[in-house]
Amino acid sequence: MKKLINRPEDAVREALEGVALAHPGRLTVHLDPHYIVRADAPVLGKVALVSGGGSGHEPMHGGFVGPGMLDAACPGEVFTSPTPDQMLAATQAVDGGAGVLHIVKNYTGDVMNFEMAAELARDAGATVEQVVIDDDVAVRDSLYTAGRRGVGATVLAEKICGAAAEQGRSLADVAALCHRVNTEARSMGMALTSCTVPMAGKPTFTLTDAQMEIGIGIHGEPGREQRAVAPVHEIVALLAQAVVEDLPFAPGDEVLAFVNGMGATPLMELHIVFRELHRFLDERGIAVKRCLVGPYMTALDMAGCSLTLLRLDDELTALWDAPVDTSGLRWGA
Amino acid sequence: MKKLINRPEDAVREALEGVALAHPGRLTVHLDPHYIVRADAPVLGKVALVSGGGSGHEPMHGGFVGPGMLDAACPGEVFTSPTPDQMLAATQAVDGGAGVLHIVKNYTGDVMNFEMAAELARDAGATVEQVVIDDDVAVRDSLYTAGRRGVGATVLAEKICGAAAEQGRSLADVAALCHRVNTEARSMGMALTSCTVPMAGKPTFTLTDAQMEIGIGIHGEPGREQRAVAPVHEIVALLAQAVVEDLPFAPGDEVLAFVNGMGATPLMELHIVFRELHRFLDERGIAVKRCLVGPYMTALDMAGCSLTLLRLDDELTALWDAPVDTSGLRWGA
Repeated sequence: MKKLINRPEDAVREALEGVALAHPGRLTVHLDPHYIVRADAPVLGKVALVSGGGSGHEPMHGGFVGPGMLDAACPGEVFTSPTPDQMLAATQAVDGGAGVLHIVKNYTGDVMNFEMAAELARDAGATVEQVVIDDDVAVRDSLYTAGRRGVGATVLAEKICGAAAEQGRSLADVAALCHRVNTEARSMGMALTSCTVPMAGKPTFTLTDAQMEIGIGIHGEPGREQRAVAPVHEIVALLAQAVVEDLPFAPGDEVLAFVNGMGATPLMELHIVFRELHRFLDERGIAVKRCLVGPYMTALDMAGCSLTLLRLDDELTALWDAPVDTSGLRWGA
Repeated sequence: MKKLINRPEDAVREALEGVALAHPGRLTVHLDPHYIVRADAPVLGKVALVSGGGSGHEPMHGGFVGPGMLDAACPGEVFTSPTPDQMLAATQAVDGGAGVLHIVKNYTGDVMNFEMAAELARDAGATVEQVVIDDDVAVRDSLYTAGRRGVGATVLAEKICGAAAEQGRSLADVAALCHRVNTEARSMGMALTSCTVPMAGKPTFTLTDAQMEIGIGIHGEPGREQRAVAPVHEIVALLAQAVVEDLPFAPGDEVLAFVNGMGATPLMELHIVFRELHRFLDERGIAVKRCLVGPYMTALDMAGCSLTLLRLDDELTALWDAPVDTSGLRWGA
């Protein structure tokens, strides 16, 4: 294993210290327990958004903390759920009196721990709602999941719900919106190479130089099948077909198309993937109205990509376009 | 070679088509010859900034086209200089009557072709200045370079000069500023793995699982030495020591610290690198006043990083802080 780290057991803490040093005045990074909040938290009268999950997916979630997106993120150890005490502390730190929404990716540990944290926070007087994201069409159950895994739709939900919260909408509204994003979004990913978890010290799974994994999870958990590597237009067709037929997306639909890099895939390749996806959708009468192309939900040093489609309406489009100011996503009015 | 591409010879064009589809209304992508301009170019009365170089370093330079940064970028084939006709067409497309500055990384092909393009543009009536960036302290001459290579300072120069041009400063002023950024900045990089150029189909160089290359170039050209991999605090000390003693940076200096990812290095590791760099500078009385951490000047799928320090004064700091609105760098007032 070759990584730019000191001791594997210190990697998450040291990375968080780096995040704190890189964003003074914008983020407050707590180290015991680990959580990241907007420097101006709590924002009084605003619904607060909290997410979290294992580390190793950066910029998700810490890179999405800031005005117009998350109020707090709870990073666990690499590919390991954060603990309820982190989630409780984050929830209490950002609660501005209008309630707190937990956006939870569907992995067994995350769901269990967020449920426990919500219970503890409610016992202490907070109003907490939770939405579980499960947009990955690749497999029904998986290594760490009952049901479908939560992947790319999480980024979109955090952005869209963050905008709604910023507009002063109620907790019930923001939670309903989060459910709607999850309902209207589907994803699938693939890998050309494995990732290597620092504490494991070796690749999580094996692929030969001639193989790829279709339907990969963001922790390297198995997808649908390993098959021979192919030109990108075939890879995109495989992924996009599975995504489109699942919802299903139909001719006339307008979508946000999100091409996500898994960590080690050059931006040049992601733009080639986006070109193929755009053509695929064009041919089916599905209009790409908005897009996002880049490494937003990574799996350490995995090479590969995932595709997420979100069916848009005017409301979702306007919320997507609303200003956001985080280190990972940033645009103006 | 496993990459998300179709035919290697089509990769650059297909990626540019993807960029065009991803940024309609913001960027205009010309495909014959290849160049990317701000959709609102030419901006009348504003000094125009043009840069370019081989593809494979994305988001540089195409991702830095937009208000507050570049007016145009000329992407060559992978790791290959763009041609004078691209540079000439881009120069003429963005010339708003206040002159055009070419920001050129010091590689022999780039320098020669930009010189020829400037000559052709001047013959056709344009006013063109050129500044060559050569901030890499690793080696004196290199595979593609006479003198020092141009690396991370290019990103900083493009941002800072872009802000100055936006403020309406003269071509002479903006060119002088660009020289000053180059004079006040130093960089050095390292690699844990090689990159693979699509048309070559195999890694550019060889490193065992126990080796790293110190002083690597952004095309995989050799650096100072191959040595055993080490904890990141040792790696950062090696790079930062070479950078600091070259200018030299001195106690009391205020700097912009730029930790750049080479393409395949997770953001988590880059934040650990930044933490180590911050400590290294702190111990020497050098204050990190601004920073940039992420993959901004990549080398395809190389794992590794580079460090760039820029000595700041109030003027450079204010220009760094000025709004910028590109796909690669974006912040508000």
